Amino acid sequence: MFLAKVTGSVVSTQKVQQMVGQKLLVVEPLRVDEKNKKSLKGTGRTFICVDTVGAGEGETVLIVQGSSARFTEDTKTLPIDAAIIGIIDSVDSHGNTVFKGTN
Amino acid sequence: MFLAKVTGSVVSTQKVQQMVGQKLLVVEPLRVDEKNKKSLKGTGRTFICVDTVGAGEGETVLIVQGSSARFTEDTKTLPIDAAIIGIIDSVDSHGNTVFKGTN
Amino acid sequence: MFLAKVTGSVVSTQKVQQMVGQKLLVVEPLRVDEKNKKSLKGTGRTFICVDTVGAGEGETVLIVQGSSARFTEDTKTLPIDAAIIGIIDSVDSHGNTVFKGTN
Amino acid sequence: MFLAKVTGSVVSTQKVQQMVGQKLLVVEPLRVDEKNKKSLKGTGRTFICVDTVGAGEGETVLIVQGSSARFTEDTKTLPIDAAIIGIIDSVDSHGNTVFKGTN
Amino acid sequence: MFLAKVTGSVVSTQKVQQMVGQKLLVVEPLRVDEKNKKSLKGTGRTFICVDTVGAGEGETVLIVQGSSARFTEDTKTLPIDAAIIGIIDSVDSHGNTVFKGTN
Repeated sequence: MFLAKVTGSVVSTQKVQQMVGQKLLVVEPLRVDEKNKKSLKGTGRTFICVDTVGAGEGETVLIVQGSSARFTEDTKTLPIDAAIIGIIDSVDSHGNTVFKGTN
Repeated sequence: MFLAKVTGSVVSTQKVQQMVGQKLLVVEPLRVDEKNKKSLKGTGRTFICVDTVGAGEGETVLIVQGSSARFTEDTKTLPIDAAIIGIIDSVDSHGNTVFKGTN
Repeated sequence: MFLAKVTGSVVSTQKVQQMVGQKLLVVEPLRVDEKNKKSLKGTGRTFICVDTVGAGEGETVLIVQGSSARFTEDTKTLPIDAAIIGIIDSVDSHGNTVFKGTN
Repeated sequence: MFLAKVTGSVVSTQKVQQMVGQKLLVVEPLRVDEKNKKSLKGTGRTFICVDTVGAGEGETVLIVQGSSARFTEDTKTLPIDAAIIGIIDSVDSHGNTVFKGTN
Repeated sequence: MFLAKVTGSVVSTQKVQQMVGQKLLVVEPLRVDEKNKKSLKGTGRTFICVDTVGAGEGETVLIVQGSSARFTEDTKTLPIDAAIIGIIDSVDSHGNTVFKGTN
């Protein structure tokens, strides 16, 4: 899995039947900053994910990719390869708190 | 999933039986422009996809990869690893409308 | 899926039983040239594929990756992650014919 | 599979039901140093994994990705694409011991 | 699939039950040298694979990735994403013999 920040959303009216009613979010994968090891930084890549946990823009989330994105109760029949499966409270790495949510 | 622009199409006469009659489109993956965060830009990569939604050249689409590309009604028996599952109306990211279709 | 050029072949005598008799081809993935958008160019990467359509060296082909490589009649029991599923006649992109076979 | 170092952990309260109680570790993939071929070095990438073997921070581990991450007794129903399946004692490469644990 | 050179091995005592007794090899993926097209060269990447064919250090092998790594007789229940499925005798590409084993 990987960490990502929700940066926005996608509107698609014309889509396969199974995807009707699914919220599609834009996310940017994150990594631990290689230089200071003290924060997460964006990778510049863009993925589109189905949301299963009520994530909102600006939140840091956990993404599962591939066939496993179909292994939640809400996604098992969907033609998707990426799903948000958790909202992140905090991330510790290299002895530092590299991310802490505002909740 | 990822966003992509349909840039063209492929003709293949000699192919596996299951693929006969399938429209094969050329797509270029897109990402949110890292600099201005105000538009989508091409990544320069080239994928070939089966189309399930009647997408046409120039349109911005949603692509699913991997085994999940076989999870639509039209593609379940096909030996494919990428399918277009939606036509994009608009994309919002970083507080900007980074894409808006002309329909 | 992706486009690739068949550049050669592999000989392997000692291999898993299921692969006995399978032709193994060397391919180089192709992409639309980002500069002129008028031709395909090699990516420099090297993949090994099973051939299901009688492709020969020098031909441009369509490759499927991952579990879907096992979804053709000839490959369903093979431990493979890439198969040639079509020989390409022509590719159009950005309004140009970026590839045309000699047949 | 790939080698990685456990660098930290993730806390996520709001997540899909199946993931409740699963320890989520932050790992950095490693490779054999191309220059000296005498040590492992970090790649700077960040993955989140489920742990099945009781790995701790600072340990070097073996990671499996994709659908196979669901092929252990503990992970078979989880929506995950990466799991730690072993703790590494030592790695030999190019005639050198490139890693040796402290146990 | 891809070509790789076996560069070493991994020792892991503490691992998931299914992996007990499995030989874990370190491999470096290879590609056809883009410059001279006359040899294979290393990519600098490091993968860990299960061996199904008795490969030894220094040998050039064929690797299958993903769920298909579980499609050999010896690996079908293993939580693995990469397996060696053949030992390479020779590779021809661009009209050159880019690799020839010593057997």
